[in-house]
Amino acid sequence: MTESDKLDIIIPFKWKSAKSRLSNMMNLEEREEFALKMFQDVLNTIISFKRQSLNDIKISVLTTTNDVPDCIKDERFRVIVDTRRLNDALNELISVKSIEDNSHLLILMSDLPLVNTKIIQEILNREEDLIIVPGRKGGTNMLFIKNRSKFRVDYYGISFKNHEKIAIENGLSYHLYDSLFAGTDIDEEEDLLDLLVFGEGEAKKYLERLGFVAVSKGEKIFLDRQ
Amino acid sequence: MTESDKLDIIIPFKWKSAKSRLSNMMNLEEREEFALKMFQDVLNTIISFKRQSLNDIKISVLTTTNDVPDCIKDERFRVIVDTRRLNDALNELISVKSIEDNSHLLILMSDLPLVNTKIIQEILNREEDLIIVPGRKGGTNMLFIKNRSKFRVDYYGISFKNHEKIAIENGLSYHLYDSLFAGTDIDEEEDLLDLLVFGEGEAKKYLERLGFVAVSKGEKIFLDRQ
Repeated sequence: MTESDKLDIIIPFKWKSAKSRLSNMMNLEEREEFALKMFQDVLNTIISFKRQSLNDIKISVLTTTNDVPDCIKDERFRVIVDTRRLNDALNELISVKSIEDNSHLLILMSDLPLVNTKIIQEILNREEDLIIVPGRKGGTNMLFIKNRSKFRVDYYGISFKNHEKIAIENGLSYHLYDSLFAGTDIDEEEDLLDLLVFGEGEAKKYLERLGFVAVSKGEKIFLDRQ
Repeated sequence: MTESDKLDIIIPFKWKSAKSRLSNMMNLEEREEFALKMFQDVLNTIISFKRQSLNDIKISVLTTTNDVPDCIKDERFRVIVDTRRLNDALNELISVKSIEDNSHLLILMSDLPLVNTKIIQEILNREEDLIIVPGRKGGTNMLFIKNRSKFRVDYYGISFKNHEKIAIENGLSYHLYDSLFAGTDIDEEEDLLDLLVFGEGEAKKYLERLGFVAVSKGEKIFLDRQ
């Protein structure tokens, strides 16, 4: 990306009844608060990045409900409400945008509290048409799309493979960006350990306030709640 | 590392009763075979790397038992048997070596079947005194040590933090190398999914021969055995 390129950053964010796979660890209120803290960590990283960048960057939060919490209403980004499934909502944004202007598009998930500005910068510096950041178990945690008109997202299943395939079918060069921190999306009990061990932001502090700790015993590290 | 530097690569390998945390998924024989396949993947990567490198590279496998399987007896590397705990065995190797010669030392675990030569090269190209490759849950999957006399390993607990601390205490510069593929050590059921999804080598093929598959259902990916 050169300095004159425009960049749209989209953060899909689910708040209501979020993180259901943590139901055995946290009640509904805790899960929604936790999802919000992770979103805030991602947003803080993006805002820090924007501050140090020379590019014209626009930040959008994509959500399925009008009932967004007050704290995510912020003049630094716009909120797009779309009640459809993620793929449909994002593919409309991709296609509309590719007519409207020729900005590049970075899509990153809101449950990546370990992402940092160095990772964002490295991804944006790459030369390929498409950068895919795979997450654990084959998901896609971030996508950087330079040729919107030739791309569409397909987030379900082992989605990093879907995105590789779509790139190949459309003649796009692509790169798999290898990062433990960007590859760690927090969905399940085991992921909380990674956040406790590697985290530094609000989401980690919130876990600690809830009493979660990483306990080491010999070679094994496990999660406990006090 | 410059072309004239010598490099010792040490792969600690546990074979007998390996991977006990997979006991609910595989029987003893399968676990030992699986550990061996992962070791072979790591070794293949190291041997490919050595072939393309200009450095003088010596490969050693550190194991706790004399009863090593025939297939790991190979003229391309030496086998060091040390019955003590990993820290003690490695720290002796580090200190003896630091008197013997001034080669650099790369320690990588044998359960990293997703490691590739590009990762090895990037780690060896770094400028810092010490490169730590953290693994999931805070372990240390690889260490690249340039100042052996000022370093010792401490693998138990959240060991990447131990290694950061030892570096700081000894005035060594260090870098955390961020990689999902090098950060994924295969210990537990959930890790098998990562190997199935991202793997390409012998360990992945062995899992498939055992009938393990990654099944996707909506947003969720889970492990099944057929």
